[in-house]
Amino acid sequence: MILPDPGNELGLSSELAARLCDRRAGIGADGVLRVVRTAALAGSMPELARAAPGPKAGQAEWFMDYRNADGSIAEMCGNGIRVFARYLLEHGMAGGPAFAVATRSGVRQVRAEADGRITVDMGPVTVLGPGYAVVGGVGCAGLRISVGNPHLACVVDDSLDTFDLSRPPKLDPADFPAGGNVELVRVTGPAAVSMRVHERGSGETRSCGTGAVAAAAATAATAGPGTGRWQVTVPGGELTVTLDAATSWLTGPAVIVAEGELDAGWLAASA
Amino acid sequence: MILPDPGNELGLSSELAARLCDRRAGIGADGVLRVVRTAALAGSMPELARAAPGPKAGQAEWFMDYRNADGSIAEMCGNGIRVFARYLLEHGMAGGPAFAVATRSGVRQVRAEADGRITVDMGPVTVLGPGYAVVGGVGCAGLRISVGNPHLACVVDDSLDTFDLSRPPKLDPADFPAGGNVELVRVTGPAAVSMRVHERGSGETRSCGTGAVAAAAATAATAGPGTGRWQVTVPGGELTVTLDAATSWLTGPAVIVAEGELDAGWLAASA
Repeated sequence: MILPDPGNELGLSSELAARLCDRRAGIGADGVLRVVRTAALAGSMPELARAAPGPKAGQAEWFMDYRNADGSIAEMCGNGIRVFARYLLEHGMAGGPAFAVATRSGVRQVRAEADGRITVDMGPVTVLGPGYAVVGGVGCAGLRISVGNPHLACVVDDSLDTFDLSRPPKLDPADFPAGGNVELVRVTGPAAVSMRVHERGSGETRSCGTGAVAAAAATAATAGPGTGRWQVTVPGGELTVTLDAATSWLTGPAVIVAEGELDAGWLAASA
Repeated sequence: MILPDPGNELGLSSELAARLCDRRAGIGADGVLRVVRTAALAGSMPELARAAPGPKAGQAEWFMDYRNADGSIAEMCGNGIRVFARYLLEHGMAGGPAFAVATRSGVRQVRAEADGRITVDMGPVTVLGPGYAVVGGVGCAGLRISVGNPHLACVVDDSLDTFDLSRPPKLDPADFPAGGNVELVRVTGPAAVSMRVHERGSGETRSCGTGAVAAAAATAATAGPGTGRWQVTVPGGELTVTLDAATSWLTGPAVIVAEGELDAGWLAASA
């Protein structure tokens, strides 16, 4: 859910985020992306000032204040920032087809593609080395990959349907002291993979932007050049990942379903 | 979700209902309540003409066209019709604090209470006789009750938390040839009960309007007069059930969270 608050007047407490995302008593969403002008944030978000490299007014006009459905703070979301960019573009709030968005994990470049999809700079990808997970009792070898957050991407030969992701995969705590996301990746063509993902703290999800990047990087490291373009099929749809020497790019759809206003009475009611 | 379509111009296919209720690619809801003027329906909904007693223009100004989240047709929803009434009241579309709403199960009287809650006539309740269910391996004796749809309401002594409703309770197919809803009811005061409910086809839910009526009727039949007012606590909140000689009434909150417009591009896109 996009919550426009250009002047930083509404704010977004974790309680409000959780109420908004409640699928029974609120609107319901996987998270809230508050749209705030960076110039309106000065001094008001110490957590933002602590982020390194901290987004600053002038680097990006807009800050993406992202909260998970439980109200907790999230730094970045590769799928969410595309919808955030779509909102700015549809409302004439972005300076052009390519612009910057400030997030808690730094300033990210986004751009609207000619085909209507949106691309976001996901930052550098680092292949750290081999790793191992037990997925529903089945051992899976993979590669430990950092896309800002930690991943184990396992290129597998079996059909992805055969794996049980209903419980968290077991990772070696020496390799993943804070846990990690696990991707099961199957090569389906010369530059195409299918992927299922278990996200740390969330369970199996329909898509994971950093996971798609990790899946492409693992495939690239296993067979073929380390750079290029991969088609990544996730349960929720199709993504394109582009790896170059310096960074990674994620391209995918971003659709606004509906727009409206919160009821003042609901907003004023205590949780 | 309320979908206003006074002139019956948009219509509501099962495909559109399912797309709207999709919690990932749509807005997300438990169901869609389309608001249609009965006068605009003439001849256009054969299923409505087949309903007996069929709602007719003149008996009620508005028809509640209710679809479940999977797009299937539902006849009535005791919680949904309160929100439907709230919408009409907030928009000045109802003739007064008490008015009639046409549904596939006939014309229902609704009224706004002074305390802001909304009451709906749930129709007559019939206690059919004793029945039995196995709930998570535990046998429960109860009463078979019809509130238009079939229920087994079991007044129990144990804490409601001890029952496992993660799987459908087993009912005697001779008593429930088409299945039924099962309520576990605990008496908490002179005219107060707590209830958990397993809805046929849906699993355990946070509230069930007809289930609350069945819970009150079972308590009334077990101890005390057959008429009166019961406070029914469900996992989702508080309901009041009033039983008189002729019919049953359900009173509870109804809150509009937000209002807005579907994106034309999303609406036009094929599913």
